[in-house]
Amino acid sequence: MAPGATLGGAQSLSHQGVALFAKDHGRVNLHQLPPDLTPAQQEHLVTTTKDWAIQNGLAVRPSPTALPAGADSNRVLATNAPVTLFPSPFPKACFEEAQALQTVYNQLYAAITCNEEWLGKVMGELIDVDDFVANLWKTHLAVQKEGYVQNLSLGLYRSDYMAHVAPNRAPALKQVEFNTISSSFGGLSALVRSLHTELLTSPPGTPITYPPHPLLQSGVPPENTSVETLAGGLATAHKAYGSSKSTPELPLCVIFVVQDGERNVFDQHALSKRLTGFHQIPVFRVRSSELFDQTSVSDSNPSRPLIYRPPYSPSSAFEVTTVYLRAYYSPDEYKSSRDWDARVHLERSAAIKCPTVLNQLAGCKKVQQVLAEPTGPDHLSSFLKGTDPTVIARLRETFAPQYDLSANSQGRNLALNAETALNHVLKPQREGGGNNIYKAEIPGFLQSIPETDWKGWVLMELINPAPDAVNVALRNDGEVLRGNVISELGVYGTILWDNTGKVLHNDQGGWLLRTKGKEVNEGGVAAGFSSLDSVLLF
Amino acid sequence: MAPGATLGGAQSLSHQGVALFAKDHGRVNLHQLPPDLTPAQQEHLVTTTKDWAIQNGLAVRPSPTALPAGADSNRVLATNAPVTLFPSPFPKACFEEAQALQTVYNQLYAAITCNEEWLGKVMGELIDVDDFVANLWKTHLAVQKEGYVQNLSLGLYRSDYMAHVAPNRAPALKQVEFNTISSSFGGLSALVRSLHTELLTSPPGTPITYPPHPLLQSGVPPENTSVETLAGGLATAHKAYGSSKSTPELPLCVIFVVQDGERNVFDQHALSKRLTGFHQIPVFRVRSSELFDQTSVSDSNPSRPLIYRPPYSPSSAFEVTTVYLRAYYSPDEYKSSRDWDARVHLERSAAIKCPTVLNQLAGCKKVQQVLAEPTGPDHLSSFLKGTDPTVIARLRETFAPQYDLSANSQGRNLALNAETALNHVLKPQREGGGNNIYKAEIPGFLQSIPETDWKGWVLMELINPAPDAVNVALRNDGEVLRGNVISELGVYGTILWDNTGKVLHNDQGGWLLRTKGKEVNEGGVAAGFSSLDSVLLF
Repeated sequence: MAPGATLGGAQSLSHQGVALFAKDHGRVNLHQLPPDLTPAQQEHLVTTTKDWAIQNGLAVRPSPTALPAGADSNRVLATNAPVTLFPSPFPKACFEEAQALQTVYNQLYAAITCNEEWLGKVMGELIDVDDFVANLWKTHLAVQKEGYVQNLSLGLYRSDYMAHVAPNRAPALKQVEFNTISSSFGGLSALVRSLHTELLTSPPGTPITYPPHPLLQSGVPPENTSVETLAGGLATAHKAYGSSKSTPELPLCVIFVVQDGERNVFDQHALSKRLTGFHQIPVFRVRSSELFDQTSVSDSNPSRPLIYRPPYSPSSAFEVTTVYLRAYYSPDEYKSSRDWDARVHLERSAAIKCPTVLNQLAGCKKVQQVLAEPTGPDHLSSFLKGTDPTVIARLRETFAPQYDLSANSQGRNLALNAETALNHVLKPQREGGGNNIYKAEIPGFLQSIPETDWKGWVLMELINPAPDAVNVALRNDGEVLRGNVISELGVYGTILWDNTGKVLHNDQGGWLLRTKGKEVNEGGVAAGFSSLDSVLLF
Repeated sequence: MAPGATLGGAQSLSHQGVALFAKDHGRVNLHQLPPDLTPAQQEHLVTTTKDWAIQNGLAVRPSPTALPAGADSNRVLATNAPVTLFPSPFPKACFEEAQALQTVYNQLYAAITCNEEWLGKVMGELIDVDDFVANLWKTHLAVQKEGYVQNLSLGLYRSDYMAHVAPNRAPALKQVEFNTISSSFGGLSALVRSLHTELLTSPPGTPITYPPHPLLQSGVPPENTSVETLAGGLATAHKAYGSSKSTPELPLCVIFVVQDGERNVFDQHALSKRLTGFHQIPVFRVRSSELFDQTSVSDSNPSRPLIYRPPYSPSSAFEVTTVYLRAYYSPDEYKSSRDWDARVHLERSAAIKCPTVLNQLAGCKKVQQVLAEPTGPDHLSSFLKGTDPTVIARLRETFAPQYDLSANSQGRNLALNAETALNHVLKPQREGGGNNIYKAEIPGFLQSIPETDWKGWVLMELINPAPDAVNVALRNDGEVLRGNVISELGVYGTILWDNTGKVLHNDQGGWLLRTKGKEVNEGGVAAGFSSLDSVLLF
């Protein structure tokens, strides 16, 4: 344990509290948050958190590389997910706006997915610089040629935001990205909410686990129904699939397609537990590398039901109603043509995909950029016909300005100008396509790569989170880090629609706060660079 | 993973199934239980069990010695508790008899504890061979001299049994021991019942996790309310304590006194979670080594309330209603006079002790032996005045014959005779006083120690469990062992009484099955030698 160390390397920043929030919102005292901890306070918080996490499944498998060789040859060890020791203050208005807009966002991305022509045009600009997009699009074309046999699509989404701070203005909700595939941490984020609630109220009647602070005494984080919402989406698709298309009829199931060596399994198990326990739906986990061994589509049945045979009970056959992908989102998961064949295999089957290839493509950063273009066609109003224009305006308000870098464009000018670049971040369109490039480094970076590759990048105006937010994180190796942090709010939604655009189910519920050290610009929670957190609204 | 290895070293025994049970109880087929597993079946069962355990808190901290040096310097790792992959068949009649007798056993041990004269006489025979008993008795005398200020006592008990098999007779319930202090595994045993229930019924509607077998398709283990029962006992004592005896009044709490470096923490946390969550009672964990730093009894208050001050909030004071000991049960925990002083400190306070020193002494093997003496005074009827004699007879039926080794006694004759010794086990009266000595080794062992030490040993007729029971265990290091096993059923009970013998609360509920490799005669679950299990009644 290293109480003096800082979170994510923010070593030069001291415990200043979130001064800016306090200035702008005088009614709540956010100074000195979190309060300084005595060694005994920190030890108690850390011990309580470590034990609570294991008792309640707020856990991850440790990275094999983080353990000495041979320390866990049977892969049996677990550790707490990285979590903050305190909930983070978050502006209530921003939190509520994110919740209010989620079903509109669901509808937007369903509508985009239904508009193959529009999506194809956007993708067309990427295909020669992004072979991942190209292969996904080819997958769609291959299945389209044969003909899709499932007209329902399921989305389990997470829209990620920051609370953007500008001088003399209330914090504003700004979208960082919209996830249409493998939206993770819904299983664990509800647990972090419970953990922080328990720390805030413990022991019952005389809460003393945290040192006294007005905000920590003001209440608990809002309800977090992420597990119910996400599992509810899967259950809705399962039911909408209808009866077995096999002869004789087979029992129905949902499969989770997962990665080999997944360490974030307990996040996924939280959803399958809800599906099997509450909804009484069989759920099987299938590693993407074993899809062809364990699933099949019979050529003799024109309905193309996807059949799953558990390797431990090969005589039992189940028909898959819904394929939930917790894999296949990253280019590096496709190591050979066999992996792409597996994707086609799923896509052409009768199972409802969560998501379809087209829905996955709709989640490209490029799509987000086109939607957010400050000038040009009003895509939002086209996709959201019938939606109250004031709601569309609110949704548009959550966009940070984004640009492509085409010749003579505003984006190219902003990116190459040393002064305007300072207010921007350059993001690779392709997942795993490189790191984000920030501010002053943007012009030089662009000069260093061929201009033909610029199409693979999106320029985005920087979102400015509260500059002086501080938290204390417990990493999954038990190190304790304190420092200045940035928090990102994710809001979950689920939608089921058919290919005519008819929406059968549209729901929102549950949220995630991820908090990372300020100098850490990338990195997932499971990688240990950022921590799961919860919100205290103010 | 070593599928071919055997549980607890029973390497020469093959997969014979529980043939004897099958012979005696033709209506249920217990042959080939558990069924042989294909590699895929075993892999699925093991993976499911490992993940389920961590997701649901069926966990232990790994032994630091089991990991390479430096592998877990922050003590953050956890692993599954050792569990069997299958529930074990257990005779329904024996299971129900154990439940039916538990409140009578509760009453018996409360009555023994109230009879200081009787208990003193039994202890008197031990004091010169057992300094642990001597020191406990001295603790009682010291507090008695000053005067006890709390007339209520709380017992959280576990009565341990085997199903004894004799030719041509139905299995009979025989008591192994009765635990009056730190009765453990109530927190985890309910989880094992849930695990096995899920394995038996998974996936919903089409259970295929286990290979088919009539007994595995016959139902699920009975309800296990161990957590509710044990926490309910503590909550009852907390309430019975009444209002604060301090001026001004202080908030009330329960403390768990625990060992340094405890690895079985999640078992304990299951009880504290129920107490804080359901009963809304503050619970604090206090290491026995820190009792004097964190608790005090004021000399100026004749009621002697026990005051607890959390080190992380020293200005907060709580009055302890109930001291739950998960420490101080073993002689090696008393390293200096300071430890005995701490025990006196607790005992003389106004807190209700679970257990008192006298109640701990009532749990000595010597007491069990005196109660079970086949000849002599009818202690049971004296202690259980007003109880139906047929119930007393049923309770007596659970005793295996036990003997002391006094000169010219039946016990001495049975122990020294090479032939009769074969049917016995010699147990040290003192916890941690050495290993049990079995059968042919008894006469030689006794000859090798001074005759004056024989008083420290109890001779017990062997209980014969089903000879051919087999199970598969998943150890907490992930090794998988299959082999012949012995199972021990524990039944939980709680009782609150005052020193006049008046019973305020007497409850039973919840159970534990521990299963160990047949050649392993000693060893706790946390040590990895035996596994937590559940029962399928037949």
